[in-house]
Amino acid sequence: MDPSRALSYARAGRKQFVSELVEFLHFPSVSSQAEQTGDVRRCADWLARHLKNIGLDHVRIIPTRCHPIVTAAWRHAPGRPTLIIYGHYDVLPGEPLSDWRTPPFSPTIKNNTLYARGAADDKGQLFSHLKAIESYLRTSQTLPLNLFCIFEGEEEIGSPNLTPFVERNRGVLKTASAAVVSDTRMISAEQPAISYAQRGGLRAELEVDGPPHELHSGSFGGAVHNPVLALCDILAGLHDRHGRVAIPGFYDDVRVWSEKERNYMAASGPSDQQILHAARVEQGWGESGYSLYERTTIRPDVSTSGIIGGHTGHGVKGVIPSRALAKLSFRLVPDQQPERIAQIFRDHIARVTPRTARSTVRTMSPIHPALIPRRHPAVQAARQAYKLSFGVPAVLIRSGGSIPVVHTFQNVLGIPAVLMGFGLPDDHIHGPNEKLNLPIFYKAIETCIWYLALASRLSRAAGNQQRKERIA
Amino acid sequence: MDPSRALSYARAGRKQFVSELVEFLHFPSVSSQAEQTGDVRRCADWLARHLKNIGLDHVRIIPTRCHPIVTAAWRHAPGRPTLIIYGHYDVLPGEPLSDWRTPPFSPTIKNNTLYARGAADDKGQLFSHLKAIESYLRTSQTLPLNLFCIFEGEEEIGSPNLTPFVERNRGVLKTASAAVVSDTRMISAEQPAISYAQRGGLRAELEVDGPPHELHSGSFGGAVHNPVLALCDILAGLHDRHGRVAIPGFYDDVRVWSEKERNYMAASGPSDQQILHAARVEQGWGESGYSLYERTTIRPDVSTSGIIGGHTGHGVKGVIPSRALAKLSFRLVPDQQPERIAQIFRDHIARVTPRTARSTVRTMSPIHPALIPRRHPAVQAARQAYKLSFGVPAVLIRSGGSIPVVHTFQNVLGIPAVLMGFGLPDDHIHGPNEKLNLPIFYKAIETCIWYLALASRLSRAAGNQQRKERIA
Repeated sequence: MDPSRALSYARAGRKQFVSELVEFLHFPSVSSQAEQTGDVRRCADWLARHLKNIGLDHVRIIPTRCHPIVTAAWRHAPGRPTLIIYGHYDVLPGEPLSDWRTPPFSPTIKNNTLYARGAADDKGQLFSHLKAIESYLRTSQTLPLNLFCIFEGEEEIGSPNLTPFVERNRGVLKTASAAVVSDTRMISAEQPAISYAQRGGLRAELEVDGPPHELHSGSFGGAVHNPVLALCDILAGLHDRHGRVAIPGFYDDVRVWSEKERNYMAASGPSDQQILHAARVEQGWGESGYSLYERTTIRPDVSTSGIIGGHTGHGVKGVIPSRALAKLSFRLVPDQQPERIAQIFRDHIARVTPRTARSTVRTMSPIHPALIPRRHPAVQAARQAYKLSFGVPAVLIRSGGSIPVVHTFQNVLGIPAVLMGFGLPDDHIHGPNEKLNLPIFYKAIETCIWYLALASRLSRAAGNQQRKERIA
Repeated sequence: MDPSRALSYARAGRKQFVSELVEFLHFPSVSSQAEQTGDVRRCADWLARHLKNIGLDHVRIIPTRCHPIVTAAWRHAPGRPTLIIYGHYDVLPGEPLSDWRTPPFSPTIKNNTLYARGAADDKGQLFSHLKAIESYLRTSQTLPLNLFCIFEGEEEIGSPNLTPFVERNRGVLKTASAAVVSDTRMISAEQPAISYAQRGGLRAELEVDGPPHELHSGSFGGAVHNPVLALCDILAGLHDRHGRVAIPGFYDDVRVWSEKERNYMAASGPSDQQILHAARVEQGWGESGYSLYERTTIRPDVSTSGIIGGHTGHGVKGVIPSRALAKLSFRLVPDQQPERIAQIFRDHIARVTPRTARSTVRTMSPIHPALIPRRHPAVQAARQAYKLSFGVPAVLIRSGGSIPVVHTFQNVLGIPAVLMGFGLPDDHIHGPNEKLNLPIFYKAIETCIWYLALASRLSRAAGNQQRKERIA
């Protein structure tokens, strides 16, 4: 099916698409904050209406124990393959608000760039697919292939209800040849990329309790263990002086990659310099013996995403706090199992907590690491789609992030997730001043238009091919 | 002068005194929070009116660069000695509010106990002296001796403007024989105590900066140094495994005490068990080779009163924060100088900050340690005053806290500060549910009445005697 009319429609509609995306970004659909449950729901309602408006069928808002999944379908291409399009409409909180130049939920356009929480992760990327679908349906009243759309509202909290949903609907969903997921990054504005590996994850809260009440540090300082210091001791002990995680057994299941794969990575992936530039830091850090690209993809880590304890307001209050809390984020690699990491972390904390304090560990959001076969036809079709829109084929890289659904699609449905990312390394996803580069957004829509055309040639059995292929 | 009529008046007036103290405690006179400057001022106004009402002269509210000093005098006893009464009407913040059973600034009486921020530190203790003065003036229209009252509003922020005030008024203030300060604790409700030593102090903020913005921990975790972890490493390194502060030079000026003084302390001071009971913890902590009483009085320490960094709200956000901040409280002992400790702390932090992060140190509120001669007549008179009200003389103990004015009175005026404390070890000063035991408050007023009578016999030259005497 010739996409030229769809492409023309997409080019003419850019201004309209951006104004719709701005509407979508206005919703503070923060999945991790209970007080914003209503905003998440209103965002789901808006998205469902939009899916209907662009011509999709069977639009539904499926309730879960927490935030709803919005689904749609289009199944009027008998004999053609079926594709799943996945995205998430939930976002992280905007905090720290003071670091934003414009408010996170007041989308602002400046120099062809759209600033808002969710602009890149993931509303903007999700929206590229919707605009591609609309471009076909408005110009041809048909699509090159059959579609299921699955847009969840819980990705940022670890997709707790998505696997059960996929399992319940396995019968119909497994007719798909592949799933396409746009929630990753390109190398640069000129060099698109497809991610063929995702790290897994595990989140944890570590609380250290000391005296039952805050104590005067004059009366007791030097005689009672400070839980903030006890927590710092434990956190400082999580890495050894070589930057390795010092939890016994942590590396037991980490896969060792061949020279060939490491050479492939060195040739295809970003350099240390590119990673430092994207992070805007001067010095790398971490496990010796690995490049920064390797440290963020084939090596696991644990990081502290937040810490709080005692008096944190203005001035210094002379107290020994009664408790301190750290929030930790593990990034895991094949063949680590988040459940086992949770167990050895608990064991480690119990072992290293001093007798002068008490500790509590809560773990949540386990995500399995995932690998996608690089030579799968659905992946190769995506490389080609990028070539037609960006002028160069996508390189295949590993990603350090964690998208829970990738493992679910592979494990429950036996189909690959094609990670066609449109983010830029400096989009500040998860940070203040998150942004979407609008020229990239326009190219992303064209890439999605091409992909629908190219994926229509996939065999219906392509999904099963991945099992026979091994990476590297 | 026979105090019996004053004592009768004080016994009859208890209910009235408590209701006035409740009024005084209603003011959230938090000196460390700029937004409460108005409350501090209103509290000063109330206090000044109260001083006039009880019959003191020359009541003034003296502005400073921050919070005012409230002063008063009574000088109608020619030939009699002069006493300075010092107290502070400012308080610490009420946070963490959720740990209070009743709001900190809604004073609540339950089981003969008055709960409020400032109930013990220091409004309740200050008020005991005012009620003693009132008891004399209302019954005899005279006092046994001359008085200067100095009530400041900046004690909890390190009294930055008090030393200049005392220096400006040195001429008149040095006519005093002694200063009495009620801002310390007794051993128990049955055993009063006078503090003859105070630790000094220094407060500091240590900020560690990492990447200019929060980073996604998937994309960068393992390759960019997390400033929270860098801060934890630095804080964990502040003590060695023997519980000693590991800042080079920290112990250089710490005075070594004789066996005789340490034996005196062991005989007069609280046991480890009493200190643990007051803190409500089971295990002691700190520098080996010293009792808990010694660790909190003749040994210095540094404690972390607060820490904050990254995402601290609900859930765990997968980020590498851009900065982390710790608030530190040093407690110093003779002959450490806070200015020198500030310098070696800065040097130490500069040395241990890794190349992958940047650190900033801000120090504030330097307070010199102080020693008061135990055999000074003004101290001995206070022991006797306790005996007449509590039935037992006060024991002489060291205190771990820091009251800036003690060093100022000694250094600028050459007079001792008599630390007649009325707090109980479990009064939760600086913590939630701070309280004042009302029967102790009544005895404190009687002790102050006796003290005014006994101090009237002090020689006017008593103030100079301290220079000739050495402790221990």
